[in-house]
Formats: sequence, structure tokens, C-alpha cells
Amino acid sequence: MFKIVHQDGKARVGRLQTAHGTVETPFFMPVASKASVKAMSGSDIEDLGYQSLISNSFILSLSPGIDVVENIGGIHKFMHFNNTIFTDSGGFQVLSKDFLLKKSDKGVYFKDKSGKKSLYTPELVVENQLRLASDVAMTLDDVAHFGLGGKDYVDAIKRTHAWAKRSKQAHDELKESYNSKQLLFGICQGGIREEYRRFSTHKINEMDFDGVALGGLVVGESRKELLESIKIAVDSFDQEKIKYLMGLGSPSDIVQAVGEGVDCFDSIYPTANARHGSILTKTGRYMIKKIAYKHDKGPLEEGCTCSTCTHYSKSYLHHLLRTHELLGYKLATIHNLHFMNQLLNNIRTAIKEGRYEIFKNEFLEAYFSGKEAKEFSSQIQRKYQEKEEQQQAKYLLTHQNSSSKK
Amino acid sequence: MFKIVHQDGKARVGRLQTAHGTVETPFFMPVASKASVKAMSGSDIEDLGYQSLISNSFILSLSPGIDVVENIGGIHKFMHFNNTIFTDSGGFQVLSKDFLLKKSDKGVYFKDKSGKKSLYTPELVVENQLRLASDVAMTLDDVAHFGLGGKDYVDAIKRTHAWAKRSKQAHDELKESYNSKQLLFGICQGGIREEYRRFSTHKINEMDFDGVALGGLVVGESRKELLESIKIAVDSFDQEKIKYLMGLGSPSDIVQAVGEGVDCFDSIYPTANARHGSILTKTGRYMIKKIAYKHDKGPLEEGCTCSTCTHYSKSYLHHLLRTHELLGYKLATIHNLHFMNQLLNNIRTAIKEGRYEIFKNEFLEAYFSGKEAKEFSSQIQRKYQEKEEQQQAKYLLTHQNSSSKK
Repeated sequence: MFKIVHQDGKARVGRLQTAHGTVETPFFMPVASKASVKAMSGSDIEDLGYQSLISNSFILSLSPGIDVVENIGGIHKFMHFNNTIFTDSGGFQVLSKDFLLKKSDKGVYFKDKSGKKSLYTPELVVENQLRLASDVAMTLDDVAHFGLGGKDYVDAIKRTHAWAKRSKQAHDELKESYNSKQLLFGICQGGIREEYRRFSTHKINEMDFDGVALGGLVVGESRKELLESIKIAVDSFDQEKIKYLMGLGSPSDIVQAVGEGVDCFDSIYPTANARHGSILTKTGRYMIKKIAYKHDKGPLEEGCTCSTCTHYSKSYLHHLLRTHELLGYKLATIHNLHFMNQLLNNIRTAIKEGRYEIFKNEFLEAYFSGKEAKEFSSQIQRKYQEKEEQQQAKYLLTHQNSSSKK
Repeated sequence: MFKIVHQDGKARVGRLQTAHGTVETPFFMPVASKASVKAMSGSDIEDLGYQSLISNSFILSLSPGIDVVENIGGIHKFMHFNNTIFTDSGGFQVLSKDFLLKKSDKGVYFKDKSGKKSLYTPELVVENQLRLASDVAMTLDDVAHFGLGGKDYVDAIKRTHAWAKRSKQAHDELKESYNSKQLLFGICQGGIREEYRRFSTHKINEMDFDGVALGGLVVGESRKELLESIKIAVDSFDQEKIKYLMGLGSPSDIVQAVGEGVDCFDSIYPTANARHGSILTKTGRYMIKKIAYKHDKGPLEEGCTCSTCTHYSKSYLHHLLRTHELLGYKLATIHNLHFMNQLLNNIRTAIKEGRYEIFKNEFLEAYFSGKEAKEFSSQIQRKYQEKEEQQQAKYLLTHQNSSSKK
């Protein structure tokens, strides 16, 4: 099911076998929460070379409903994507202030947009994903929000482990009746505190999951804290297991996490950035809507072979994104997703050739000190950093409030 | 430049030769006001089989600016569309309340969104379109808004003719310096009053334009009034000239107008309808967002060969459009534009085979009495009709007010 075929330091190349083909690791998955990667069709994602993507069973349960996708014949047919599809449990989303009513050991009580109250249990989550007929299902986990105290983390970890056990049992029981080859991944929690993360990793590791995931990261912690937590978790898991870091998607983070032994990633990073006009390149990212690009005849990135760079100028993208033309979102998304897929190709090649450490350092040097990175780290960079910090502060405030209300 | 190759009653098949190829008439053009058919790339439009589309030189002069498109090497290169491109003068837009300050014989004084005041003249409009390097340019015309009195129509007609003459002169003078093979079409006005329309048609007909257009229609008049005005104008123009009815795009209207001898159409009808979830079929249009389609496994239209109908269910489109997923706009647009292109293919074939009258009657019978049409003419139809009537009333009120303020 998962086999490591090359090892270079902690970094490795492996093969994950699912009901819809083989995915070479390390890999990155675009996010299709509502059964569509924003602005892209399933065929568009295949054409870019992606062997897999991830959808979200909680979001799909709200709309169109699990029954709709099941009746059509499963998520592959529904969205016309023939490679591997992961589905997230949606633990992160159901626990957000938009939906959460109350957590209990039984599960999560939530209200949908119409105000209807429901109970979301580990067993229901497993069955929903079997009904969606995804290739890889994720367990329901309990995510303590970043910045909360120790008690919250301990509670979240305990519940995550109890739910993981119930998920595994339900999956084992139900799988046959769905005639399914679906894999089930367990998720460890523990925030950024070493003993919590180590304990949770250990617990999830002992259960017999087909793969293991690092949850509760990329939620506001510093890059140093993130990297430390990754190291702890990866080292504590069995080495032969496939390791999935949920929600990580910036190129520099991925390059570093692969160096620590992570095999699998997903994030809205490249697609959300694209729609905001933030373009990924080897020499850093830049904002295409800046007035400097109004007359620029060049492609989004010199040397890029994506269809956007082949046919269109910076000038055209600048115009489309400034005037909110739908085509702009798609063309920018094509470039950013092509960039990510190329990056993962290059990562795998470097590992196979035993030069991952050199590749990593060269990539990070160019990404942080390149032409675009330097331009970005001017006024606009500062503006964005401030905005990100404000959003983070607001996020923490909101979640601390909603947590204290519980 | 334009040659009629088949005649069947008043309907005819012809060939329009431009700098970017041959367009067989009658044809329909999707609208790319900002150099993109909404949600579609230039290649997408080519792939659907379209030989031409229309952009808008006024809209482009506001953003990104004529200089931007010119510097890139013209509108074909800018938007990556290699077939024939028409550009409208934007007379209709510059005269709308969003922009208009004052009309004079010299031209139109308008303000852009930043509040900057400019003068828009027939000569500037011609030069802008030469700089954009479109294949067919349209003259600046003066459109009297539907519902205004006789004096307004007479003023608009007189100004339209004076501007048409100045446009032709400017185009003749400037064409060579741009090394351009661009064609220039004149536009007749006159609203729905027979003597005005006949007079304007006659005047535009005498000037030596490469093609002639019917302007100032499809702005709120009844279907009967529209058809009468088309008959008058088409009969008054020289028969060997190519005749373009601006802004007409509903399938039933096109089928009838072709029967009167119109050769060329453009409209946002199929694309705007698509984005609102209104799906065109041979048996009428229907609203895909209706709850009835939630579980429907069938394609948008049975027997349709477009890529949307080949790969996706009504159920998926229902979900995408209800949840505002960007992909939904594109997939619905593909179907509606494929439908329009097929319709025009069928129209041309019927004329070539000398059975246009039969085709027309069969099409209209199916379109107005078919399954979808019947469903549509229920509650939802009534709701939409009411809304359209309200919008029309509001439009008239606004324009009468802004007209009386002048």
C-alpha cells in the first residue's frame, strides 16, 4: 500500500497505492472542498499532472449532501476526476465558530446555515466518506485552537485518540458492506508542546492506520515552532508509514518539511494566492496587480511552461485580475498549481539523485533572496504582513472568546 | 470582402473575409467587453468553433487602456484569440448614466470611475479601434433611449449620420498609417418608428461602409416592434451588404431575424444566462438551480455533445451554481455557447438546403412548446417576467430622468 523506494537523509520518495492509481510521494494536493478546485475542472487538475486532490466530507455533507454524491456514483464521477481523491473529515471546519455548538465525548454538536442542529460523530464521518467513495478517508479529530492553555490541549488529545479508535473500528466494520478499498488515515494532535505532540503521535502510531497525519499545525504558530513540531512527530512515527502534514502549502515550508521526512501535503495556499493575484515563482512571490506590471509583455514567470505563461502576458493577467474577470482567477490558478507540481517533481528528482540537502538550500536561497522576493519585501510585503498579523490576532481573539463561552 | 453564396427566401448564407480569416454568415458572436468572454479563454472560444467574437473599445479604453493592448501587439495577441475580432465603439455604454456628462455635435463628454472628464469623438473611436487592431470596427452612434419622444430620436439620428460620415473619413485617412486591413461598419438608428428607421437606414446605406448595422434595438421594445423594425431596416439596405443586428442573442429572436435577412449577431444573452444558471436547450431554457435537479444524473441537455454534457451531471452543475463555485460559471457557459454555435450551424445548413422556413417553424415550435419551456413557464417564469418588467420600468425611469437633466 505504501512503499519507500528512495531515501536521502530523512527525505524519501515512496509510492502510495490507492483504488485509483499510484501516487508518488512526496506530493501536494490541491483542495476541492466543494468537489471543485476553485475555478478548475477535474480534467484541468489531471492535465496539470496531479495524481491526487483532497475534498472535504463535512463541507460536502452540507451541500450538495452526501446522498447526492453517492447517488451519482461517488465523488470521482461527480467531479470527473479519475486519480486519487482524499477526503478530509472536516474536523477543523465543524469546530469553527461558524458551526460549533458544543463538543462532547460523543461527538460535535453543530448548526448549519439554516440553523438546523446535528451531531457529528467519528462513526458518521467514516460512513460519510465511504458513501462518497473517496480513496483515502481521514478520522475526525479534535483540534485545540492555537493559543489556548494546556488543559484544552490535553482534552483535545484525549478526545482525538478516543475518536481515532472508534473511527478505525467503524471503518473496519463498514468497509466490507461498501465493497471498498478505501484507506483510513489517523491524525495526531498536541499543538506545539513537545510532550503533548510526542504522546499523541505515539498513540496514533500504535493504532493500525493506513497512514498517519499531523493535525493542528499551520494555525498561527511561528515557523520555528512549526518545524520543531514536525520533527518531533515525524521522528516518533514508524518510519515506514506514510506521513501527511495537513494544511501546509507554502513552497518554502514544503521544501523544509520534506527534508524532515513528510510525504504528503494539502493546502489552499497556491489557489487562494492565485485568486488574490499573488504569483509563485522560484525567486519568490509577487503581486501581479501592482501597477509595475500594467505594460509587462513577459509571462508570469520566465521559463515556465504552463499554458498561462505560454499564451499570456503579465499585462493581460494584471488587467483581468484588476477588473475581476473570471478568466483571471483560472489563469493565475493554472500557473500557481503548475508551479507547485513542478516543485514536487523537482523535490522527488533531487531525493532520487541523493542531493536533497543541496536542492533544499538552493531553493530556499533563491526563494527568499530572489528578484521577486526582494520586490515583495518592500511596502506591499509589509502591508501584507501587517494584515496577516491582524488576521491572526483577530482569529485568536475570536476563538478564545468562543472557547470561553463553551 | 462579403459574398452571398446561398439564398433561401430572405435568409442567406455568406462569407465575410477579414484579416483573420473567413466567417460564414449568419453567425453569432460572444461578447468579450474586457477582452475576455466571461469565464472563458480565447482558446476556449476557438475550441467551441467560434470564428469571431466582439470586444468593446470604450470599455477597453477605460481599462487596461488602449495603449496597453497596442503595446502588447493588438487585441488578438492580448487575449490569445486568433480568429476574427469585432470591436464595438461603445456608444451604448458611454451614453449610459454611469458615464454620460453631456452630448454635443462634437462628441460625448463623459466621466470615468475616478471622476476624470474626457471627450469621446467619432475620430477618437476610429483611431482607438485601429490601435486595438481589431478586424472590424464600429462607428460611434447616438442612441436615443427607448421610450423617449420624437425630438430625441430625430436628434440622435442626425448626430448618428454626421458622426458616421466623420468616422468614415477618419478611418479612410488613418487606415494606411496603421497598415491596417480593418473593416468599418456603419450603424443606423431610428428606434421603432418606421419613418425614422427607414430614413436612417437610407442615410447609412449611401455611405460606403464595409457593412451595416442595426443599432438602438433590443432595448426594451416588444418582440413585435423589434421584428417590424428589423424588416424595415433590412429591406431598405442594399441586399449585397452584410447586415449586423447589434445586441440580439436569444435563440428564438435570432432564428426569426435570420428569416428576415440578418447576417450577424452579438449578445451577452447565452453567457449572462449561463452564469445565472439559465440553461439553453432545443426545448426551451430552464433554471438548473431549481431543487428538481439536485439528484438529476442526466446531462444539461440530452444528446448535447459539449464537454460539459459529456462529463458532468445536472446534479453537479446544480451544486456548483448554488454554491457559487467558479467552475459552475464556466461549465454552464460552455454549454450555452455550444448550443448557440450549433444553432447557427443548423441555421446555415437549413439555408443551404433550401428549407429555412420549415427549420424556423420547427425550431420555434420546439423552443416555445417543449418540455423545458413548459416547466419554465410556471412560477419561476412568472417571477422572472415580473423582474424583467420591473427592470425595464426602472431603466426607462432612470433614462428619462437623466435625459431631462441634460
